[in-house]
Amino acid sequence: MTQTASYPVDATNRVKRAHERGAYDHETVHLLLDSAMLAHVAYVIDGQPFCTPTLFWREGTRLYWHGSSASRMLRNLSKGEPACLTVTHFDSVVLGRSAMHHSADYRAVMAFGQARLVSDPQEKAQALTMMVDRFFPERTALLRPMTVQESKATSVVVMEIEKASAKIRDKGIADDEEDYALPIHAERIPLHTVIGTPEPCVRMPAGVARPDTLAEWADGRLLEKTLRRAYASAYAVPA
Amino acid sequence: MTQTASYPVDATNRVKRAHERGAYDHETVHLLLDSAMLAHVAYVIDGQPFCTPTLFWREGTRLYWHGSSASRMLRNLSKGEPACLTVTHFDSVVLGRSAMHHSADYRAVMAFGQARLVSDPQEKAQALTMMVDRFFPERTALLRPMTVQESKATSVVVMEIEKASAKIRDKGIADDEEDYALPIHAERIPLHTVIGTPEPCVRMPAGVARPDTLAEWADGRLLEKTLRRAYASAYAVPA
Repeated sequence: MTQTASYPVDATNRVKRAHERGAYDHETVHLLLDSAMLAHVAYVIDGQPFCTPTLFWREGTRLYWHGSSASRMLRNLSKGEPACLTVTHFDSVVLGRSAMHHSADYRAVMAFGQARLVSDPQEKAQALTMMVDRFFPERTALLRPMTVQESKATSVVVMEIEKASAKIRDKGIADDEEDYALPIHAERIPLHTVIGTPEPCVRMPAGVARPDTLAEWADGRLLEKTLRRAYASAYAVPA
Repeated sequence: MTQTASYPVDATNRVKRAHERGAYDHETVHLLLDSAMLAHVAYVIDGQPFCTPTLFWREGTRLYWHGSSASRMLRNLSKGEPACLTVTHFDSVVLGRSAMHHSADYRAVMAFGQARLVSDPQEKAQALTMMVDRFFPERTALLRPMTVQESKATSVVVMEIEKASAKIRDKGIADDEEDYALPIHAERIPLHTVIGTPEPCVRMPAGVARPDTLAEWADGRLLEKTLRRAYASAYAVPA
């Protein structure tokens, strides 16, 4: 991946409304993806759209997610099914001086491609490891190994990103110029998704310590920062 | 709305995997919707699924959202377009003793129906008011009134909920019984979306106070609690 690489733009992923908020370069798109754990995936069955929440992660220009919803999603495993995976960071609500200028700051990515089940055994084994280690670095090495039955029962979906766009609004209050003088209270209210106090399992044998590799999962941290650092650690790239 | 009313269940909205997590009653579905502000909407154009983040709210068994994406979404205004609106509360990550039992606690709703532009002038005026007041009770009364041009430039999408399902996982760690004795650290890590410190606009005239109606939007509050209370206040129902 070079820092100047970009995803191709066409009618599907071009940011149409407030197009100045759009970006297509790998760096911007990937950073927003790697700062998240939850995505929503849209797919179609017999003309009916479905929007399913899922945990996901990126590897290069591929997105992976757990195939729990795959039973009804991926009917055609050989050629794949068109899908759109979206990640949204909801950063603030913006209370302007008019209803028109009530808004929100956010950072979102929409990624398009063909979703298919991972069938190659080596790719699947790697994906089943990264499904844990991408979020909790080096964790699988500490776990009870996966059984053959578990591996068979778990499906992984992969989607090569064919097109993608990032859309960012970060300007806070943006009222009509003539409205600023009005005696109306206006403010931006930031929102944060934070990590709470970890709750150790009450059934652990005595003497089992929390591994150091979970240090980033600490009370009060911003989830997106922890996820970015975990990504950097798991894939050995700069944080 | 009666407390025992439920949405009809068929192949589209039946919770298939871990079906014991599914619920279809209005009370459960509506509470999860009313605790949220951000939804993801799936719709289809020429076989291509799109997943778009949007602010939304509920009124009875109808969902409303801002029509910003409607330009390419709603081609057929008369009959509506099939859509799926999904809300996800991401409550925790669950680190079990095996890769298989790594999971997440969450509360999600998928709602299905036909999305259409609001065309009735009275319904649209009401929707443009509630688009603000549902989140910030009684706020439009304090604002510079909406102009005719602004109203024309804003489109509102409505979807009568035809089918819906709630899916809730809240059991935390659920390892295989024989794994509990292993010397492996296991924990649940809660996640919270919280309100940060409100940032007043720096261009307000002197003496403009924060309205009391924003009291629920206070530093440190859980966003979902503030949204539930705002809903109850805006629609005059119990919190």
